[in-house]
Amino acid sequence: MVSQREKAEAFRALHHGRHPFVLPNAWDVPSARVFEDAGFPAVATSSAGLMVSLGYPDGEEIPRREVAAAVERIATRLSIPLSADVVSGFGRTPRGVATTVRMMIEAGAVGINLEDLDPSSDGLLRETLQVRKIEAVRQLGTSMGIPIVINARTDAFRHGSGDVNERLRAAIRRSTAYRDAGADCVYPMGLTESGSISTFVQALECPVNVMVHKGLPTVAELEALGVKRVSFGPSASYAALGLLKRASEEVLTRGTYGLLLEGAITFDELNLLARRRRPSSAPNR
Amino acid sequence: MVSQREKAEAFRALHHGRHPFVLPNAWDVPSARVFEDAGFPAVATSSAGLMVSLGYPDGEEIPRREVAAAVERIATRLSIPLSADVVSGFGRTPRGVATTVRMMIEAGAVGINLEDLDPSSDGLLRETLQVRKIEAVRQLGTSMGIPIVINARTDAFRHGSGDVNERLRAAIRRSTAYRDAGADCVYPMGLTESGSISTFVQALECPVNVMVHKGLPTVAELEALGVKRVSFGPSASYAALGLLKRASEEVLTRGTYGLLLEGAITFDELNLLARRRRPSSAPNR
Repeated sequence: MVSQREKAEAFRALHHGRHPFVLPNAWDVPSARVFEDAGFPAVATSSAGLMVSLGYPDGEEIPRREVAAAVERIATRLSIPLSADVVSGFGRTPRGVATTVRMMIEAGAVGINLEDLDPSSDGLLRETLQVRKIEAVRQLGTSMGIPIVINARTDAFRHGSGDVNERLRAAIRRSTAYRDAGADCVYPMGLTESGSISTFVQALECPVNVMVHKGLPTVAELEALGVKRVSFGPSASYAALGLLKRASEEVLTRGTYGLLLEGAITFDELNLLARRRRPSSAPNR
Repeated sequence: MVSQREKAEAFRALHHGRHPFVLPNAWDVPSARVFEDAGFPAVATSSAGLMVSLGYPDGEEIPRREVAAAVERIATRLSIPLSADVVSGFGRTPRGVATTVRMMIEAGAVGINLEDLDPSSDGLLRETLQVRKIEAVRQLGTSMGIPIVINARTDAFRHGSGDVNERLRAAIRRSTAYRDAGADCVYPMGLTESGSISTFVQALECPVNVMVHKGLPTVAELEALGVKRVSFGPSASYAALGLLKRASEEVLTRGTYGLLLEGAITFDELNLLARRRRPSSAPNR
Protein backbone atom coordinates (compact mmCIF):
# COMPACT_ATOMS: atom_id res chain seq x y z
CA MET A 1 0.00 0.00 0.00
CA VAL A 2 1.23 3.42 -1.00
CA SER A 3 0.76 6.04 1.72
CA GLN A 4 -1.25 9.18 1.09
CA ARG A 5 1.91 11.22 1.47
CA GLU A 6 3.66 9.14 -1.20
CA LYS A 7 0.66 9.53 -3.47
CA ALA A 8 0.80 13.30 -3.09
CA GLU A 9 4.50 13.27 -3.96
CA ALA A 10 3.92 10.99 -6.94
CA PHE A 11 1.13 13.28 -8.12
CA ARG A 12 3.36 16.35 -7.78
CA ALA A 13 6.16 14.63 -9.72
CA LEU A 14 3.81 14.15 -12.69
CA HIS A 15 3.83 17.95 -13.09
CA HIS A 16 7.60 17.98 -13.60
CA GLY A 17 8.07 15.26 -16.21
CA ARG A 18 9.41 15.87 -19.68
CA HIS A 19 6.00 15.19 -21.21
CA PRO A 20 2.67 16.65 -20.14
CA PHE A 21 0.34 14.24 -18.37
CA VAL A 22 -3.35 13.93 -19.12
CA LEU A 23 -5.62 14.10 -16.10
CA PRO A 24 -9.12 12.70 -16.70
CA ASN A 25 -11.95 14.11 -14.59
CA ALA A 26 -14.38 11.57 -13.18
CA TRP A 27 -17.62 11.96 -11.20
CA ASP A 28 -18.24 8.58 -9.63
CA VAL A 29 -16.53 5.28 -8.89
CA PRO A 30 -16.85 3.57 -12.29
CA SER A 31 -15.85 6.62 -14.34
CA ALA A 32 -12.74 6.99 -12.16
CA ARG A 33 -11.91 3.29 -12.36
CA VAL A 34 -12.31 3.16 -16.14
CA PHE A 35 -9.71 5.93 -16.28
CA GLU A 36 -7.35 4.13 -13.94
CA ASP A 37 -7.71 0.88 -15.88
CA ALA A 38 -7.07 2.72 -19.17
CA GLY A 39 -3.64 3.70 -17.86
CA PHE A 40 -3.90 7.33 -16.73
CA PRO A 41 -1.42 8.05 -13.91
CA ALA A 42 -3.94 9.97 -11.77
CA VAL A 43 -7.60 11.01 -11.72
CA ALA A 44 -9.33 14.25 -10.72
CA THR A 45 -12.95 14.97 -9.99
CA SER A 46 -14.99 17.28 -12.20
CA SER A 47 -17.00 19.65 -10.04
CA ALA A 48 -19.80 19.96 -12.59
CA GLY A 49 -19.85 16.23 -13.35
CA LEU A 50 -19.79 15.19 -9.70
CA MET A 51 -22.30 17.74 -8.42
CA VAL A 52 -24.84 17.17 -11.19
CA SER A 53 -24.53 13.40 -10.69
CA LEU A 54 -25.74 14.03 -7.13
CA GLY A 55 -28.51 16.38 -8.22
CA TYR A 56 -26.89 19.78 -7.70
CA PRO A 57 -25.79 22.34 -10.31
CA ASP A 58 -22.09 23.19 -10.54
CA GLY A 59 -21.09 25.60 -7.77
CA GLU A 60 -21.51 25.63 -4.03
CA GLU A 61 -25.18 24.66 -3.66
CA ILE A 62 -24.18 21.12 -2.71
CA PRO A 63 -23.26 20.65 0.97
CA ARG A 64 -19.48 20.14 1.04
CA ARG A 65 -19.85 16.98 3.12
CA GLU A 66 -21.59 15.41 0.09
CA VAL A 67 -18.60 16.33 -2.04
CA ALA A 68 -16.26 14.83 0.57
CA ALA A 69 -18.36 11.64 0.70
CA ALA A 70 -18.17 11.29 -3.09
CA VAL A 71 -14.41 11.91 -3.04
CA GLU A 72 -14.06 9.22 -0.38
CA ARG A 73 -16.12 6.72 -2.38
CA ILE A 74 -13.81 7.25 -5.35
CA ALA A 75 -10.51 7.46 -3.43
CA THR A 76 -11.13 4.20 -1.58
CA ARG A 77 -11.63 2.30 -4.87
CA LEU A 78 -8.70 3.89 -6.69
CA SER A 79 -5.03 2.98 -6.44
CA ILE A 80 -3.64 6.03 -8.24
CA PRO A 81 -3.67 9.62 -6.89
CA LEU A 82 -6.99 11.50 -6.80
CA SER A 83 -7.35 15.28 -6.96
CA ALA A 84 -10.57 16.93 -5.75
CA ASP A 85 -12.18 19.98 -7.32
CA VAL A 86 -13.46 22.22 -4.51
CA VAL A 87 -14.58 25.10 -6.79
CA SER A 88 -14.06 28.29 -4.73
CA GLY A 89 -13.40 26.35 -1.53
CA PHE A 90 -16.83 26.44 0.15
CA GLY A 91 -15.66 29.21 2.45
CA ARG A 92 -15.30 32.99 2.40
CA THR A 93 -12.22 33.00 4.56
CA PRO A 94 -8.86 31.26 4.26
CA ARG A 95 -9.82 29.30 7.35
CA GLY A 96 -13.12 28.15 5.83
CA VAL A 97 -11.35 26.99 2.69
CA ALA A 98 -8.73 25.16 4.75
CA THR A 99 -11.52 23.29 6.55
CA THR A 100 -12.91 22.18 3.20
CA VAL A 101 -9.51 21.01 2.01
CA ARG A 102 -8.97 19.14 5.28
CA MET A 103 -12.19 17.24 4.60
CA MET A 104 -10.94 16.33 1.12
CA ILE A 105 -7.55 15.15 2.41
CA GLU A 106 -9.30 13.08 5.08
CA ALA A 107 -11.45 11.63 2.27
CA GLY A 108 -8.29 10.52 0.48
CA ALA A 109 -7.53 13.33 -1.99
CA VAL A 110 -3.90 14.32 -2.59
CA GLY A 111 -4.60 17.32 -4.81
CA ILE A 112 -7.15 20.09 -5.09
CA ASN A 113 -8.45 22.57 -7.63
CA LEU A 114 -9.28 25.99 -6.20
CA GLU A 115 -10.75 28.76 -8.35
CA ASP A 116 -11.02 32.51 -7.88
CA LEU A 117 -14.62 32.98 -8.94
CA ASP A 118 -17.04 34.35 -6.35
CA PRO A 119 -19.84 31.73 -6.25
CA SER A 120 -22.37 34.31 -5.07
CA SER A 121 -21.73 36.99 -7.70
CA ASP A 122 -20.02 35.10 -10.52
CA GLY A 123 -17.39 37.89 -10.49
CA LEU A 124 -13.76 37.43 -9.52
CA LEU A 125 -12.71 37.22 -5.87
CA ARG A 126 -10.14 39.76 -4.66
CA GLU A 127 -6.67 38.58 -5.63
CA THR A 128 -5.25 39.22 -2.16
CA LEU A 129 -7.98 37.12 -0.57
CA GLN A 130 -7.35 34.26 -3.01
CA VAL A 131 -3.62 34.45 -2.23
CA ARG A 132 -4.35 34.06 1.49
CA LYS A 133 -6.60 31.08 0.77
CA ILE A 134 -3.83 29.35 -1.17
CA GLU A 135 -1.34 30.09 1.63
CA ALA A 136 -3.77 28.61 4.14
CA VAL A 137 -4.13 25.42 2.09
CA ARG A 138 -0.36 25.09 1.75
CA GLN A 139 0.04 25.48 5.53
CA LEU A 140 -2.68 22.95 6.16
CA GLY A 141 -0.92 20.38 3.95
CA THR A 142 2.30 20.94 5.87
CA SER A 143 0.59 20.62 9.23
CA MET A 144 -1.18 17.42 8.18
CA GLY A 145 1.98 15.91 6.68
CA ILE A 146 0.28 15.54 3.29
CA PRO A 147 2.00 17.73 0.68
CA ILE A 148 -1.24 18.40 -1.17
CA VAL A 149 -0.89 19.46 -4.79
CA ILE A 150 -2.62 22.79 -5.35
CA ASN A 151 -3.93 23.62 -8.80
CA ALA A 152 -4.90 27.31 -8.71
CA ARG A 153 -7.47 28.19 -11.31
CA THR A 154 -8.13 31.72 -12.41
CA ASP A 155 -11.21 32.84 -14.27
CA ALA A 156 -9.69 36.24 -15.09
CA PHE A 157 -9.42 35.41 -18.80
CA ARG A 158 -13.06 34.41 -19.05
CA HIS A 159 -14.70 36.68 -16.50
CA GLY A 160 -12.35 39.64 -16.23
CA SER A 161 -12.88 43.02 -17.86
CA GLY A 162 -11.22 44.52 -20.91
CA ASP A 163 -10.15 43.06 -24.22
CA VAL A 164 -8.43 39.72 -24.79
CA ASN A 165 -4.94 41.11 -24.09
CA GLU A 166 -5.98 42.83 -20.89
CA ARG A 167 -7.71 39.70 -19.69
CA LEU A 168 -4.70 37.55 -20.57
CA ARG A 169 -2.47 39.95 -18.62
CA ALA A 170 -4.85 39.78 -15.65
CA ALA A 171 -4.78 35.96 -15.78
CA ILE A 172 -0.97 36.04 -15.84
CA ARG A 173 -0.78 38.51 -12.95
CA ARG A 174 -3.17 36.51 -10.77
CA SER A 175 -1.58 33.17 -11.62
CA THR A 176 1.85 34.53 -10.79
CA ALA A 177 0.57 35.64 -7.38
CA TYR A 178 -1.04 32.22 -6.81
CA ARG A 179 2.18 30.45 -7.80
CA ASP A 180 4.15 32.62 -5.36
CA ALA A 181 1.59 31.84 -2.64
CA GLY A 182 2.35 28.13 -2.95
CA ALA A 183 0.32 26.76 -5.86
CA ASP A 184 2.00 23.82 -7.64
CA CYS A 185 0.22 24.37 -10.92
CA VAL A 186 -1.86 27.20 -12.37
CA TYR A 187 -4.93 26.83 -14.50
CA PRO A 188 -6.05 29.70 -16.73
CA MET A 189 -9.66 28.81 -17.53
CA GLY A 190 -10.70 29.57 -21.07
CA LEU A 191 -7.27 29.46 -22.75
CA THR A 192 -7.62 27.10 -25.72
CA GLU A 193 -5.60 28.72 -28.50
CA SER A 194 -1.87 28.15 -29.09
CA GLY A 195 -0.79 31.80 -29.07
CA SER A 196 -2.30 32.74 -25.72
CA ILE A 197 -1.32 29.41 -24.14
CA SER A 198 2.29 29.97 -25.23
CA THR A 199 2.36 33.55 -23.89
CA PHE A 200 0.89 32.33 -20.61
CA VAL A 201 3.26 29.38 -20.17
CA GLN A 202 6.34 31.51 -20.88
CA ALA A 203 5.25 34.17 -18.40
CA LEU A 204 4.55 31.71 -15.59
CA GLU A 205 7.59 29.43 -15.47
CA CYS A 206 5.68 26.83 -13.45
CA PRO A 207 3.43 23.90 -14.40
CA VAL A 208 0.37 25.03 -16.34
CA ASN A 209 -2.95 23.15 -16.71
CA VAL A 210 -5.21 23.51 -19.74
CA MET A 211 -8.61 21.89 -20.25
CA VAL A 212 -9.96 19.77 -23.12
CA HIS A 213 -12.19 21.97 -25.27
CA LYS A 214 -13.16 22.23 -28.91
CA GLY A 215 -10.12 23.64 -30.70
CA LEU A 216 -7.56 22.74 -28.03
CA PRO A 217 -4.22 21.72 -29.61
CA THR A 218 -3.34 18.00 -29.40
CA VAL A 219 -1.32 16.71 -26.46
CA ALA A 220 1.83 16.68 -28.63
CA GLU A 221 1.26 20.30 -29.65
CA LEU A 222 0.63 21.28 -26.04
CA GLU A 223 3.90 19.63 -25.08
CA ALA A 224 5.69 21.84 -27.62
CA LEU A 225 4.04 24.86 -26.00
CA GLY A 226 5.34 23.81 -22.58
CA VAL A 227 2.02 22.76 -21.02
CA LYS A 228 2.46 20.19 -18.23
CA ARG A 229 -1.08 19.09 -17.42
CA VAL A 230 -4.09 18.56 -19.68
CA SER A 231 -7.35 17.92 -17.83
CA PHE A 232 -10.64 16.67 -19.22
CA GLY A 233 -12.78 19.12 -17.25
CA PRO A 234 -16.41 18.05 -17.51
CA SER A 235 -15.97 16.78 -21.10
CA ALA A 236 -16.34 13.09 -20.22
CA SER A 237 -19.68 13.82 -18.50
CA TYR A 238 -20.82 15.78 -21.55
CA ALA A 239 -19.81 12.90 -23.83
CA ALA A 240 -21.40 10.13 -21.75
CA LEU A 241 -24.69 12.01 -21.39
CA GLY A 242 -24.64 12.92 -25.09
CA LEU A 243 -24.44 9.21 -25.86
CA LEU A 244 -27.42 8.46 -23.58
CA LYS A 245 -29.37 11.19 -25.37
CA ARG A 246 -28.64 9.74 -28.81
CA ALA A 247 -29.30 6.17 -27.66
CA SER A 248 -32.66 7.31 -26.24
CA GLU A 249 -33.60 8.93 -29.51
CA GLU A 250 -32.73 5.74 -31.39
CA VAL A 251 -34.85 3.53 -29.14
CA LEU A 252 -37.79 5.93 -29.13
CA THR A 253 -37.86 6.65 -32.86
CA ARG A 254 -36.60 3.41 -34.37
CA GLY A 255 -37.17 0.83 -31.65
CA THR A 256 -33.59 -0.46 -31.96
CA TYR A 257 -30.73 -0.68 -29.47
CA GLY A 258 -27.62 -0.12 -31.59
CA LEU A 259 -26.07 2.71 -29.56
CA LEU A 260 -26.82 0.91 -26.29
CA LEU A 261 -25.02 -2.23 -27.44
CA GLU A 262 -22.12 -1.03 -29.62
CA GLY A 263 -18.76 -0.75 -27.90
CA ALA A 264 -20.31 -1.39 -24.50
CA ILE A 265 -18.54 -3.03 -21.57
CA THR A 266 -19.93 -6.23 -20.05
CA PHE A 267 -21.63 -7.00 -16.74
CA ASP A 268 -18.43 -8.55 -15.37
CA GLU A 269 -16.39 -5.54 -16.42
CA LEU A 270 -18.90 -3.20 -14.76
CA ASN A 271 -18.89 -5.15 -11.52
CA LEU A 272 -15.09 -5.19 -11.37
CA LEU A 273 -15.06 -1.37 -11.43
CA ALA A 274 -16.46 -1.42 -7.90
CA ARG A 275 -13.50 -3.41 -6.63
CA ARG A 276 -10.14 -1.98 -5.71
CA ARG A 277 -7.42 -3.04 -8.12
CA ARG A 278 -4.70 -5.30 -6.89
CA PRO A 279 -1.74 -3.34 -5.49
CA SER A 280 0.54 -4.79 -8.19
CA SER A 281 -1.07 -2.59 -10.80
CA ALA A 282 -0.70 0.62 -8.79
CA PRO A 283 0.44 3.46 -9.05
CA ASN A 284 2.19 5.84 -11.47
CA ARG A 285 2.56 3.96 -14.66
CA MET B 1 -47.91 18.58 -8.71
CA VAL B 2 -48.86 14.98 -9.35
CA SER B 3 -49.24 12.95 -6.16
CA GLN B 4 -47.21 9.79 -5.58
CA ARG B 5 -50.41 7.79 -5.72
CA GLU B 6 -51.30 9.25 -9.10
CA LYS B 7 -47.80 8.53 -10.33
CA ALA B 8 -48.13 4.89 -9.31
CA GLU B 9 -51.44 4.65 -11.16
CA ALA B 10 -50.01 6.33 -14.25
CA PHE B 11 -47.05 3.95 -14.14
CA ARG B 12 -49.36 0.92 -13.87
CA ALA B 13 -51.47 2.17 -16.80
CA LEU B 14 -48.36 2.14 -19.01
CA HIS B 15 -48.37 -1.66 -18.68
CA HIS B 16 -51.84 -1.89 -20.20
CA GLY B 17 -51.52 0.28 -23.29
CA ARG B 18 -51.86 -1.03 -26.82
CA HIS B 19 -48.14 -0.56 -27.46
CA PRO B 20 -45.28 -1.69 -25.23
CA PHE B 21 -43.45 1.06 -23.37
CA VAL B 22 -39.71 1.34 -23.12
CA LEU B 23 -38.37 1.81 -19.60
CA PRO B 24 -34.81 3.16 -19.47
CA ASN B 25 -32.72 2.25 -16.42
CA ALA B 26 -30.70 5.09 -14.88
CA TRP B 27 -28.16 5.17 -12.04
CA ASP B 28 -27.90 8.81 -11.03
CA VAL B 29 -29.67 12.14 -11.45
CA PRO B 30 -28.37 13.17 -14.88
CA SER B 31 -28.83 9.75 -16.52
CA ALA B 32 -32.43 9.73 -15.26
CA ARG B 33 -33.07 13.29 -16.37
CA VAL B 34 -31.64 12.72 -19.85
CA PHE B 35 -34.16 9.89 -20.20
CA GLU B 36 -37.03 12.06 -18.98
CA ASP B 37 -36.06 14.87 -21.33
CA ALA B 38 -35.81 12.43 -24.26
CA GLY B 39 -39.50 11.63 -23.79
CA PHE B 40 -39.65 8.29 -21.97
CA PRO B 41 -42.83 8.07 -19.87
CA ALA B 42 -41.07 6.63 -16.78
CA VAL B 43 -37.60 5.74 -15.51
CA ALA B 44 -36.30 2.79 -13.48
CA THR B 45 -33.04 2.32 -11.64
CA SER B 46 -30.54 -0.31 -12.71
CA SER B 47 -29.28 -2.16 -9.67
CA ALA B 48 -25.89 -2.88 -11.23
CA GLY B 49 -25.53 0.64 -12.63
CA LEU B 50 -26.57 2.35 -9.41
CA MET B 51 -24.60 0.16 -7.02
CA VAL B 52 -21.38 0.26 -9.03
CA SER B 53 -21.71 4.04 -9.36
CA LEU B 54 -21.54 4.13 -5.55
CA GLY B 55 -18.65 1.68 -5.36
CA TYR B 56 -20.45 -1.61 -4.68
CA PRO B 57 -20.85 -4.63 -6.95
CA ASP B 58 -24.36 -5.60 -8.05
CA GLY B 59 -26.16 -7.47 -5.27
CA GLU B 60 -26.78 -6.78 -1.62
CA GLU B 61 -23.35 -5.66 -0.44
CA ILE B 62 -24.46 -2.03 -0.47
CA PRO B 63 -26.38 -0.89 2.63
CA ARG B 64 -30.01 -0.49 1.55
CA ARG B 65 -30.14 3.03 3.00
CA GLU B 66 -27.59 4.03 0.35
CA VAL B 67 -29.90 2.64 -2.33
CA ALA B 68 -32.82 4.55 -0.80
CA ALA B 69 -30.76 7.77 -0.69
CA ALA B 70 -29.87 7.38 -4.38
CA VAL B 71 -33.51 6.68 -5.27
CA GLU B 72 -34.52 9.82 -3.37
CA ARG B 73 -31.91 11.96 -5.16
CA ILE B 74 -33.31 10.80 -8.49
CA ALA B 75 -37.02 10.86 -7.58
CA THR B 76 -36.84 14.43 -6.28
CA ARG B 77 -35.41 15.69 -9.60
CA LEU B 78 -37.74 13.70 -11.84
CA SER B 79 -41.33 14.54 -12.80
CA ILE B 80 -42.24 11.18 -14.31
CA PRO B 81 -42.69 7.91 -12.33
CA LEU B 82 -39.57 6.17 -10.95
CA SER B 83 -39.29 2.43 -10.29
CA ALA B 84 -36.57 1.14 -7.94
CA ASP B 85 -34.68 -2.11 -8.39
CA VAL B 86 -34.29 -3.73 -4.95
CA VAL B 87 -32.66 -6.96 -6.25
CA SER B 88 -33.82 -9.70 -3.85
CA GLY B 89 -35.30 -7.22 -1.39
CA PHE B 90 -32.47 -6.90 1.16
CA GLY B 91 -34.30 -9.21 3.54
CA ARG B 92 -34.74 -12.93 4.09
CA THR B 93 -38.31 -12.63 5.28
CA PRO B 94 -41.40 -11.05 3.73
CA ARG B 95 -41.30 -8.52 6.54
CA GLY B 96 -37.68 -7.61 5.81
CA VAL B 97 -38.46 -7.10 2.13
CA ALA B 98 -41.50 -4.98 2.99
CA THR B 99 -39.27 -2.73 5.12
CA THR B 100 -36.97 -2.25 2.14
CA VAL B 101 -39.87 -1.42 -0.15
CA ARG B 102 -41.25 1.02 2.42
CA MET B 103 -37.91 2.85 2.31
CA MET B 104 -38.12 3.05 -1.49
CA ILE B 105 -41.69 4.35 -1.44
CA GLU B 106 -40.71 6.94 1.17
CA ALA B 107 -37.83 7.89 -1.14
CA GLY B 108 -40.34 8.55 -3.92
CA ALA B 109 -40.44 5.30 -5.93
CA VAL B 110 -43.78 4.12 -7.33
CA GLY B 111 -42.58 0.78 -8.64
CA ILE B 112 -40.14 -1.93 -7.66
CA ASN B 113 -38.24 -4.81 -9.22
CA LEU B 114 -37.94 -7.86 -7.00
CA GLU B 115 -36.01 -10.95 -8.09
CA ASP B 116 -35.99 -14.54 -6.86
CA LEU B 117 -32.25 -15.10 -6.78
CA ASP B 118 -30.69 -15.87 -3.40
CA PRO B 119 -27.97 -13.23 -2.99
CA SER B 120 -25.93 -15.46 -0.68
CA SER B 121 -25.87 -18.61 -2.83
CA ASP B 122 -26.68 -17.33 -6.34
CA GLY B 123 -29.30 -20.14 -6.51
CA LEU B 124 -33.05 -19.59 -6.70
CA LEU B 125 -35.06 -18.72 -3.60
CA ARG B 126 -37.92 -21.05 -2.70
CA GLU B 127 -40.95 -20.18 -4.79
CA THR B 128 -43.31 -20.18 -1.81
CA LEU B 129 -41.07 -17.73 0.05
CA GLN B 130 -40.93 -15.42 -2.97
CA VAL B 131 -44.72 -15.55 -3.23
CA ARG B 132 -45.03 -14.44 0.38
CA LYS B 133 -42.60 -11.61 -0.23
CA ILE B 134 -44.69 -10.36 -3.15
CA GLU B 135 -47.86 -10.61 -1.07
CA ALA B 136 -46.19 -8.62 1.69
CA VAL B 137 -45.17 -5.87 -0.75
CA ARG B 138 -48.70 -5.70 -2.16
CA GLN B 139 -50.15 -5.39 1.34
CA LEU B 140 -47.63 -2.71 2.21
CA GLY B 141 -48.65 -0.67 -0.84
CA THR B 142 -52.28 -0.93 0.16
CA SER B 143 -51.58 0.07 3.76
CA MET B 144 -49.49 3.07 2.63
CA GLY B 145 -52.07 4.15 0.06
CA ILE B 146 -49.48 3.93 -2.74
CA PRO B 147 -50.46 1.23 -5.24
CA ILE B 148 -46.85 0.31 -5.94
CA VAL B 149 -46.21 -1.42 -9.26
CA ILE B 150 -44.49 -4.76 -8.66
CA ASN B 151 -42.29 -6.18 -11.40
CA ALA B 152 -41.49 -9.76 -10.33
CA ARG B 153 -38.31 -11.05 -11.91
CA THR B 154 -37.48 -14.71 -12.08
CA ASP B 155 -34.04 -16.08 -12.77
CA ALA B 156 -35.37 -19.61 -13.32
CA PHE B 157 -34.58 -19.52 -17.04
CA ARG B 158 -30.96 -18.49 -16.44
CA HIS B 159 -30.17 -20.19 -13.15
CA GLY B 160 -32.60 -23.10 -12.99
CA SER B 161 -31.73 -26.72 -13.74
CA GLY B 162 -32.54 -28.83 -16.78
CA ASP B 163 -32.59 -28.05 -20.49
CA VAL B 164 -33.98 -24.93 -22.13
CA ASN B 165 -37.55 -26.23 -22.17
CA GLU B 166 -37.50 -27.29 -18.55
CA ARG B 167 -36.08 -23.94 -17.53
CA LEU B 168 -38.66 -22.07 -19.61
CA ARG B 169 -41.41 -24.11 -17.93
CA ALA B 170 -39.96 -23.30 -14.53
CA ALA B 171 -39.89 -19.59 -15.39
CA ILE B 172 -43.53 -19.78 -16.48
CA ARG B 173 -44.57 -21.65 -13.35
CA ARG B 174 -42.81 -19.22 -11.02
CA SER B 175 -44.03 -16.15 -12.90
CA THR B 176 -47.61 -17.41 -12.79
CA ALA B 177 -47.34 -17.82 -9.04
CA TYR B 178 -45.85 -14.31 -8.70
CA ARG B 179 -48.64 -12.84 -10.84
CA ASP B 180 -51.25 -14.56 -8.69
CA ALA B 181 -49.54 -13.22 -5.57
CA GLY B 182 -50.06 -9.66 -6.79
CA ALA B 183 -47.27 -8.81 -9.22
CA ASP B 184 -48.31 -6.33 -11.92
CA CYS B 185 -45.70 -7.44 -14.40
CA VAL B 186 -43.38 -10.43 -14.63
CA TYR B 187 -39.83 -10.39 -15.87
CA PRO B 188 -38.22 -13.61 -17.12
CA MET B 189 -34.51 -12.79 -17.03
CA GLY B 190 -32.55 -14.19 -19.95
CA LEU B 191 -35.36 -14.48 -22.50
CA THR B 192 -34.12 -12.73 -25.66
CA GLU B 193 -35.34 -14.90 -28.53
CA SER B 194 -38.77 -14.57 -30.24
CA GLY B 195 -39.92 -18.17 -29.81
CA SER B 196 -39.41 -18.41 -26.06
CA ILE B 197 -40.68 -14.85 -25.48
CA SER B 198 -43.87 -15.70 -27.38
CA THR B 199 -44.42 -18.96 -25.47
CA PHE B 200 -43.87 -17.11 -22.21
CA VAL B 201 -46.18 -14.18 -23.01
CA GLN B 202 -49.00 -16.47 -24.13
CA ALA B 203 -48.73 -18.59 -21.00
CA LEU B 204 -48.75 -15.63 -18.63
CA GLU B 205 -51.66 -13.44 -19.78
CA CYS B 206 -50.32 -10.47 -17.83
CA PRO B 207 -47.80 -7.73 -18.67
CA VAL B 208 -44.34 -9.12 -19.42
CA ASN B 209 -41.01 -7.25 -19.21
CA VAL B 210 -38.00 -8.12 -21.37
CA MET B 211 -34.55 -6.55 -21.21
CA VAL B 212 -32.39 -4.98 -23.93
CA HIS B 213 -29.72 -7.50 -24.92
CA LYS B 214 -27.79 -8.42 -28.04
CA GLY B 215 -30.26 -10.22 -30.32
CA LEU B 216 -33.43 -8.89 -28.67
CA PRO B 217 -36.16 -8.27 -31.27
CA THR B 218 -36.96 -4.60 -32.02
CA VAL B 219 -39.69 -2.84 -30.06
CA ALA B 220 -42.12 -3.31 -32.98
CA GLU B 221 -41.36 -7.04 -33.10
CA LEU B 222 -41.79 -7.30 -29.33
CA GLU B 223 -45.15 -5.57 -29.66
CA ALA B 224 -46.24 -8.27 -32.13
CA LEU B 225 -45.17 -10.88 -29.58
CA GLY B 226 -47.35 -9.24 -26.92
CA VAL B 227 -44.57 -7.82 -24.73
CA LYS B 228 -45.69 -4.78 -22.72
CA ARG B 229 -42.48 -3.47 -21.16
CA VAL B 230 -38.95 -3.30 -22.56
CA SER B 231 -36.33 -2.22 -20.03
CA PHE B 232 -32.74 -1.17 -20.65
CA GLY B 233 -31.31 -3.14 -17.73
CA PRO B 234 -27.71 -2.04 -17.17
CA SER B 235 -27.09 -1.49 -20.91
CA ALA B 236 -26.90 2.30 -20.67
CA SER B 237 -24.19 2.00 -17.99
CA TYR B 238 -22.30 -0.46 -20.17
CA ALA B 239 -22.55 1.90 -23.15
CA ALA B 240 -21.54 5.06 -21.27
CA LEU B 241 -18.53 3.37 -19.66
CA GLY B 242 -17.58 1.77 -22.98
CA LEU B 243 -17.45 5.26 -24.46
CA LEU B 244 -15.20 6.51 -21.63
CA LYS B 245 -12.90 3.54 -22.25
CA ARG B 246 -12.61 4.30 -25.97
CA ALA B 247 -12.20 8.05 -25.38
CA SER B 248 -9.41 7.28 -22.88
CA GLU B 249 -7.64 5.10 -25.40
CA GLU B 250 -7.86 7.84 -28.01
CA VAL B 251 -6.38 10.49 -25.72
CA LEU B 252 -3.63 8.21 -24.43
CA THR B 253 -2.55 6.81 -27.80
CA ARG B 254 -3.26 9.66 -30.19
CA GLY B 255 -3.40 12.73 -27.97
CA THR B 256 -6.70 13.85 -29.49
CA TYR B 257 -10.14 14.45 -27.99
CA GLY B 258 -12.55 13.41 -30.74
CA LEU B 259 -14.68 10.99 -28.72
CA LEU B 260 -14.82 13.40 -25.78
CA LEU B 261 -16.15 16.20 -27.97
CA GLU B 262 -18.34 14.53 -30.60
CA GLY B 263 -22.06 14.49 -29.86
CA ALA B 264 -21.49 15.81 -26.35
CA ILE B 265 -23.97 17.92 -24.42
CA THR B 266 -22.97 21.41 -23.20
CA PHE B 267 -22.24 22.85 -19.75
CA ASP B 268 -25.65 24.53 -19.64
CA GLU B 269 -27.40 21.31 -20.63
CA LEU B 270 -25.52 19.40 -17.93
CA ASN B 271 -26.39 21.94 -15.26
CA LEU B 272 -30.08 21.89 -16.18
CA LEU B 273 -30.18 18.13 -15.52
CA ALA B 274 -29.82 18.88 -11.81
CA ARG B 275 -32.97 21.00 -11.82
CA ARG B 276 -36.49 19.69 -11.63
CA ARG B 277 -38.40 20.23 -14.85
CA ARG B 278 -41.27 22.69 -14.88
CA PRO B 279 -44.57 20.97 -14.03
CA SER B 280 -45.93 21.84 -17.48
CA SER B 281 -43.70 19.23 -19.05
CA ALA B 282 -44.67 16.48 -16.60
CA PRO B 283 -45.78 13.62 -16.58
CA ASN B 284 -47.00 10.67 -18.68
CA ARG B 285 -46.49 11.81 -22.19
